[in-house]
Amino acid sequence: MLEQIKTIQDLKKLSVKQLPELCEEIRVKLIADVSKSGGHLASNLGVVELTVALHYVFDESDKIVWDVGHQSYVHKILTSRGENFSSLRQKNGISGFPDCEEDERDCFNTGHAGTAISAALGLAKARDTLGEKYKVIAVVGDGSMTCGMTYEALNNVKDTDILIVLNDNNMSIGKNVGSATLNMSKLRVGKYDRNKERLKRFLMKIPLVGKPTYKFLRWCKRRAKLGYVRNSYFDNFDLKYIGIIDGNEIKDLVYYFTKLKNNVIKPTVMQIVTKKGKGYPPAEEDPERYHSVAREGTAVGAIESSAVVGDALTEIFRRRGDAVAVCAAMSKATGLTPIEERYPSRFYDVGIAEEHAVTFAAGLAKGGSRPFVAIYSSFLQRAYDQILHDVALQNLPVTFLIDRAGFVGEDGKTHQGLFDLSYLSQIPNIKIWTPATYKQLSIMIERSLDENCPVAIRYSRYLLDEAREFDGKWNLLVDSPHPKVYLLAVGAKLSETALNVASSTDGVAAVEVTTVKTLDIEILQKIQTAQSAVVTLEENVLRGGFGESVRTYFAQRSACVNVCCLGVDDRYVKHATVDEQLSESGLDRDSVSKVVSELLSNG
Amino acid sequence: MLEQIKTIQDLKKLSVKQLPELCEEIRVKLIADVSKSGGHLASNLGVVELTVALHYVFDESDKIVWDVGHQSYVHKILTSRGENFSSLRQKNGISGFPDCEEDERDCFNTGHAGTAISAALGLAKARDTLGEKYKVIAVVGDGSMTCGMTYEALNNVKDTDILIVLNDNNMSIGKNVGSATLNMSKLRVGKYDRNKERLKRFLMKIPLVGKPTYKFLRWCKRRAKLGYVRNSYFDNFDLKYIGIIDGNEIKDLVYYFTKLKNNVIKPTVMQIVTKKGKGYPPAEEDPERYHSVAREGTAVGAIESSAVVGDALTEIFRRRGDAVAVCAAMSKATGLTPIEERYPSRFYDVGIAEEHAVTFAAGLAKGGSRPFVAIYSSFLQRAYDQILHDVALQNLPVTFLIDRAGFVGEDGKTHQGLFDLSYLSQIPNIKIWTPATYKQLSIMIERSLDENCPVAIRYSRYLLDEAREFDGKWNLLVDSPHPKVYLLAVGAKLSETALNVASSTDGVAAVEVTTVKTLDIEILQKIQTAQSAVVTLEENVLRGGFGESVRTYFAQRSACVNVCCLGVDDRYVKHATVDEQLSESGLDRDSVSKVVSELLSNG
Repeated sequence: MLEQIKTIQDLKKLSVKQLPELCEEIRVKLIADVSKSGGHLASNLGVVELTVALHYVFDESDKIVWDVGHQSYVHKILTSRGENFSSLRQKNGISGFPDCEEDERDCFNTGHAGTAISAALGLAKARDTLGEKYKVIAVVGDGSMTCGMTYEALNNVKDTDILIVLNDNNMSIGKNVGSATLNMSKLRVGKYDRNKERLKRFLMKIPLVGKPTYKFLRWCKRRAKLGYVRNSYFDNFDLKYIGIIDGNEIKDLVYYFTKLKNNVIKPTVMQIVTKKGKGYPPAEEDPERYHSVAREGTAVGAIESSAVVGDALTEIFRRRGDAVAVCAAMSKATGLTPIEERYPSRFYDVGIAEEHAVTFAAGLAKGGSRPFVAIYSSFLQRAYDQILHDVALQNLPVTFLIDRAGFVGEDGKTHQGLFDLSYLSQIPNIKIWTPATYKQLSIMIERSLDENCPVAIRYSRYLLDEAREFDGKWNLLVDSPHPKVYLLAVGAKLSETALNVASSTDGVAAVEVTTVKTLDIEILQKIQTAQSAVVTLEENVLRGGFGESVRTYFAQRSACVNVCCLGVDDRYVKHATVDEQLSESGLDRDSVSKVVSELLSNG
Repeated sequence: MLEQIKTIQDLKKLSVKQLPELCEEIRVKLIADVSKSGGHLASNLGVVELTVALHYVFDESDKIVWDVGHQSYVHKILTSRGENFSSLRQKNGISGFPDCEEDERDCFNTGHAGTAISAALGLAKARDTLGEKYKVIAVVGDGSMTCGMTYEALNNVKDTDILIVLNDNNMSIGKNVGSATLNMSKLRVGKYDRNKERLKRFLMKIPLVGKPTYKFLRWCKRRAKLGYVRNSYFDNFDLKYIGIIDGNEIKDLVYYFTKLKNNVIKPTVMQIVTKKGKGYPPAEEDPERYHSVAREGTAVGAIESSAVVGDALTEIFRRRGDAVAVCAAMSKATGLTPIEERYPSRFYDVGIAEEHAVTFAAGLAKGGSRPFVAIYSSFLQRAYDQILHDVALQNLPVTFLIDRAGFVGEDGKTHQGLFDLSYLSQIPNIKIWTPATYKQLSIMIERSLDENCPVAIRYSRYLLDEAREFDGKWNLLVDSPHPKVYLLAVGAKLSETALNVASSTDGVAAVEVTTVKTLDIEILQKIQTAQSAVVTLEENVLRGGFGESVRTYFAQRSACVNVCCLGVDDRYVKHATVDEQLSESGLDRDSVSKVVSELLSNG
């Protein structure tokens, strides 16, 4: 059936009764394709019925904004990208997130949580201002309800025709936190679902009257949910509330969406409950594990930075009662699980609330605790002002553990950690450390305790499993008697590249840059004296990055040192493997060799 | 009485009955001092009783976090800074915001709205972890309830002993917006206050039984408010709620704070209503005008950038039905009042919700509207991720109107607009324009409509009232046949300085830099050909700023141009006048002349 659906119009030709079968076919495709390509499996399995129902009921001109966006696979399959779907998250293939450039029915790019209602509200207001007619639907996960932006948007939806589908899978990435969220889920699934099934089975067994009775009861329930159920949280925002609906029950969804499409112009929240991983037993049982699955053939079991973070912190927490850890809905992903388990009273998962996380940490530090804040590079962008205004302005000793810095590969444009060296180094008081080896990461976490200022430790998912340590200085990896060119490399991959290039080229020295702020004056003075050329390598945008700070260092000393900066030149980086991204940005070994050769041949 | 209060202990020696008189004395002092020094008058007049009551009841070791912080004057007067208070907001004088460096009883620096509950929660958790005993109180204005960070914090306060005083003055800076806020204020003041007064007067007239009856009724009311009143919004967060209390009634405040201090360990919100400008009739009548008063002797009636913004937008809105404007609780301050009044259906004040504002604008643009987002430079820091992830990534035509860029003078560290050139120019796709004259500002607003990308127009409160226009290129203010030094200056003050220095020095050219991104290649090529030296001048931190981008331009072309960058060198800038701040940063005329002379004498 799926193969015959080339357009949304083909979907609309099906009868409601055919939809469950279609959903099963989509599930089979998802499991097959995503297992090979890698990607977000569990969340997409959960929203099959939701997505099919939305496209079945609403028009093609209506706009669906997918919050976070990693649950948009089914939407992509239904909007003519099914055939090419096995290219998911690969270079030049289908993006794992909504992307307007890919298809205009991806009506708003998303990636970071909590943007959908703001964006949808903008679309709806533009529609009303310009006198157009279409529906706007925001699909928002329960995790995003912990996010301040979502609240700010809810606080402004009054009187706008907009439908918010709150997809409650009791999960977000790890689990939900916070009182409002708890409150919202009071009526949640569990018993409700089991009882419903039991009643249905019971009635269906009764001959003659059983089925009509069931249908009548279902009608009553549906009317009641449409009209009378209220939710105190959403009442505060003057939102019409419908819920709780079983979001894996396609007939129910079609019924409610049809009613809403035709009759409701008041802003409405429809709370549905879906099962993450639905239809794929391993994912149903451990949805966190199947949240994001790796591409087929990926080596399993390699050390990751997060594990090193967990170990280093465990040692610190054991020793120091003042150590505390803060994360934003990503305990496991950032390596904090051991702390959560062993020191729950000093562990804080604040939800998808990066801004609060950082100012909360400032408060903790001010109160005498020693906080570690673990947030991915791209998500920490949310807390730029809080780092600047709350932590650094008061020069508070907070250690930021910034994983997924640099290229992140398949997640693409919205998730690259390519701005942190810039947005952090412009902030006064802060120190920025950049380990290339696991050993260095571990030592840096420990050493940050000796600093009386904010320290940002910034690293990629995988580092080098080598013995090189950190003593506050840069590491000279390859020296040469009179180097004509110094390679200054930030991070694991680029240190390795620098080492390789320098080892195989005469007159080239390679330096592992372990501190981006402040710079290692000793090595820079040596370079200045030698009048060597410098090539800086960083997985970061060039503007405001490490290379420019090196160039500034020499310029301020009127030193005529030729500094060539390699990095990402003022653009967003699309999904591909990390190696492909390095290569696209001229940061692979061949490109670096070429730059070095040119410098050497120029004298 | 006030003069005898040298310490908080002196305050505690007073009887409750003496407190109203003390409050009056503080009011007299506030009006006298702030009228001279300038500063936030209305909000501080409103919180006299609150501040006195807090310090009267709570211990010196307890910690009060003042959200926003401009209402901390009374706190400063009571904590030994009364004598020096006339130095408020002046160089080396008392800061207009809480500042830990000034006094440790300013237990957390604030400035931007919505940080207090996060910070207070951090302090409280640190206290509990470290086994200390003190109370933590966050004083939060109603405006901050529109702020996502406040929500994120509320969502995490569960089970923590913390008192949140919600100071409801129905005001924030302009007025409040949003459904949750409306809901919160359902019981608000107005009738309630008038009836209370009427009842009191009535009872007091009755001999013998009147006074006891009044006292009994007051007791009943107080008990009821302590125990039985609920608020559906705060119920969602499992917060104990007490309200609504008259926040200008010191005896009530002392009563409730005493009960709370001794008996309550559950997180509590106490909602009080205060009158902005209380006790100073002109400020009571027009609190917005007296929100921030100018220093005595300041010229009145000068043109401001905001007025030019208002005029330029009015012209555009008249012509184009797709134009829309977004601000974050600062309609008047950003110049949007004419739009709000004439085109209310295309004007959006979203509250203190900069993140939502920006993503909402992205949605508006995506929906075919043409949005203008007016947010002060310092506050736009909050939306760094939204500009990067929602607007620029999709390359959406949104015009940012960024007032108070560069040095802002008396507001000090938390409010300087010294980071925007850095945090904006590292974002791909965006253009950054920097007018020096009102004329240029007006033209840029109009011209931004021709761009199919985000445009950030960044300017200070006052620009030059001169005829110089904008044609997309930089303006050569002072040419010279063979300039040895080019001054490249960003913004009004520095363009003027460059012009003055160049006019009075042979061999120096002055350029008004009207576009920071992208650079004016033509002039840079001319400089490269001439092998002149360059001095860049910007009211911005040096890291990632304009100067570094000029240096990078030449370096990428292997041009041996000496670029000397003047700006703020990696530090926060304290309160002083703008001219003092320029001078401290080496950006005054003398300092620039000196740099130029040195360059000239070096050949």
